[in-house]
Amino acid sequence: MKNIRLIALGCLAMTYGGACFSQMITEDFKPSETTQSGRKYPQVNSEGRVRAGVLAPAAQSVQLDIGGKKYDLKRNADGFWTGDSGPQDEGFHYYQLSIDGASVPDPGSLYFYGASRWGSAIEVPAQDRAFYELRQVPHGQLREQLYFSKLTNTWRRCFIYTPAGYDNNTAQRYPVLYLQHGSGENETGWPVQGKANLILDNLIAGKKAVPMIVVMDNGYATLSGDNKPFNPTPTGPFPFEQVLINEVIPMIDKDYRTLADRSHRAMAGLSMGANQAMQIVMKNLDQFSYLGAFSGTANYPKSDPIDVPTFMNGAFKDAPSLNRQLKLLWLGAGTKEPAPFPASIGAFRNMLDQTGVRYQYYVSEGTAHEWLTWRRCLNQFASLLFK
Amino acid sequence: MKNIRLIALGCLAMTYGGACFSQMITEDFKPSETTQSGRKYPQVNSEGRVRAGVLAPAAQSVQLDIGGKKYDLKRNADGFWTGDSGPQDEGFHYYQLSIDGASVPDPGSLYFYGASRWGSAIEVPAQDRAFYELRQVPHGQLREQLYFSKLTNTWRRCFIYTPAGYDNNTAQRYPVLYLQHGSGENETGWPVQGKANLILDNLIAGKKAVPMIVVMDNGYATLSGDNKPFNPTPTGPFPFEQVLINEVIPMIDKDYRTLADRSHRAMAGLSMGANQAMQIVMKNLDQFSYLGAFSGTANYPKSDPIDVPTFMNGAFKDAPSLNRQLKLLWLGAGTKEPAPFPASIGAFRNMLDQTGVRYQYYVSEGTAHEWLTWRRCLNQFASLLFK
Repeated sequence: MKNIRLIALGCLAMTYGGACFSQMITEDFKPSETTQSGRKYPQVNSEGRVRAGVLAPAAQSVQLDIGGKKYDLKRNADGFWTGDSGPQDEGFHYYQLSIDGASVPDPGSLYFYGASRWGSAIEVPAQDRAFYELRQVPHGQLREQLYFSKLTNTWRRCFIYTPAGYDNNTAQRYPVLYLQHGSGENETGWPVQGKANLILDNLIAGKKAVPMIVVMDNGYATLSGDNKPFNPTPTGPFPFEQVLINEVIPMIDKDYRTLADRSHRAMAGLSMGANQAMQIVMKNLDQFSYLGAFSGTANYPKSDPIDVPTFMNGAFKDAPSLNRQLKLLWLGAGTKEPAPFPASIGAFRNMLDQTGVRYQYYVSEGTAHEWLTWRRCLNQFASLLFK
Repeated sequence: MKNIRLIALGCLAMTYGGACFSQMITEDFKPSETTQSGRKYPQVNSEGRVRAGVLAPAAQSVQLDIGGKKYDLKRNADGFWTGDSGPQDEGFHYYQLSIDGASVPDPGSLYFYGASRWGSAIEVPAQDRAFYELRQVPHGQLREQLYFSKLTNTWRRCFIYTPAGYDNNTAQRYPVLYLQHGSGENETGWPVQGKANLILDNLIAGKKAVPMIVVMDNGYATLSGDNKPFNPTPTGPFPFEQVLINEVIPMIDKDYRTLADRSHRAMAGLSMGANQAMQIVMKNLDQFSYLGAFSGTANYPKSDPIDVPTFMNGAFKDAPSLNRQLKLLWLGAGTKEPAPFPASIGAFRNMLDQTGVRYQYYVSEGTAHEWLTWRRCLNQFASLLFK
């Protein structure tokens, strides 16, 4: 049974005409899977509220900063501050604490790279979480591979998922999915908060996807001799294309037992990574035959009607040819995506509808521009590949 | 040329008889390799001082908490606080910020697991750092392997280093080093702050070590049905022994191309992990022939003379037999280790000297109970294995 109690959220005399308002809070808070082992806070309840707690004896103000809002915490006699957020969507959310104006990671949470920083995040359990949970199925491996990129003159890192049995089935070769993170994220996004390995483990064990290798690299790259830092906007152009095509794909085909042809190579990405995947695949149709764009399209951030002859150098103007070459063009987005995504993706879909380019469109119910949308997209998209 | 300036560290009238003291600080601070990409702070200078910087507009007090001391930061007009620590030893140090009494991670640093928490750490470049730097040599892979332990009834994780060429040299089998972290750390210690993969890459490329597999697991385990949480003291007994012997070693020998015999199996660990390695190897001499104990021995924390007939059930009483069975018994420690390590390790060495058990002893100059000691120990120890 849930333990319900009334708590006063605040007496906002100016705003609410002198009346205090209060709200039912379901007292079934527990540490999240993103809470550090052995820590009591942060917690989540069944409504998706986040309860933060931190010892800050001499602080004047402590806030929980999540989902674009700051929630005041209250101090107890021992100097320990606690407080709750409003209900958050199911899934994974970045957040931070504000202690007397200092925005800092929550000392009780695990840390993730996103929003252009390593910092706190919290997992609100989703009803449909079974597809990305760690389950009693054969598990593949995540491999960290360091490589020197001559194009960027830097050491780079990618993560490679090899499916269960890869090391023992030495006669078998595998198709490859290249999978990209979004703006402000890096190569840890998909293997850590994206749970790409667990999603593939579960799909493959359930015979919903064919065994495949998944390569997750960093989409930011600055070509050697190009003194500009990486383009901080998610609109491109993307020097990563050259790194991927000329360095990463040849390395993967050399180091792994891949099926090294366009029929067995897919690319997908989220947000900025969707834009990258679309630009890279459409310019390199000799290399790829599957394209997935999660929460993003190459016309981002525009939502104007797309001029087919000029858009991406006319890449979408010959629908019959494209329909022969692309085995799958797959788009997905959440119902709560903020502007400009719905209009921008909508304009792209209008263009596809008008030109007659075949595609599939997936809707993630109740999710925004966040990782639950993208986990669901990967789960759907990967199940359609290489069949 | 270094830019030297004088700064007043403080006027401690009570302590210093009314005189201000000041100190030369070398103004060559730069972001550390453990500073988040694109961040200005934390920084380190050539003296090993750490300069912290954090925006905390409404804070009354901000401190840098490192090496057991708290250093006050000073606020500028914009609410940005900066300040320096005293010189730190070369190597890797955990630290945190204190903001109005709240102990929090530095929002500018990368995060590591140690001191029983995920939190900040800083790397002070060491003179001898070449052996663990990322260099232009062939690199092995780090693999994350998830496995279900029936003994603990939990999912567990280990990291496995496979040397360069492992995937291509499919006829070759490899010896294995099992390598354990210390108290308050976990399976990420060696592959992340320990830089075990880079140390092995460099050793193998320089033909100073033979290619080997390195397995890094979590030394904490609670056996299923045992309701006690893991033993928080580093003295044991260690249920991990059962997990390692009965589950991990068989799994590694099944999933990897190992040389699966005692002649090609080593175990080493640091601090609590040294104690574990010593207890596990001495009880399982049919499985191991190399033992490395970095900054720790099985008599920890005692420094009394060891009673050979009873210590570890008489494991060291038959020196001639042990000298035949153990190809290498290797001990190492830093010159700045705190109590009880020097006396405890000293008592253990006295016992070995008296019984005539052969061993090698390595001294890490200028380092304490920290990761530079252990990186150096691994570098020395791994070079002696399987030869």
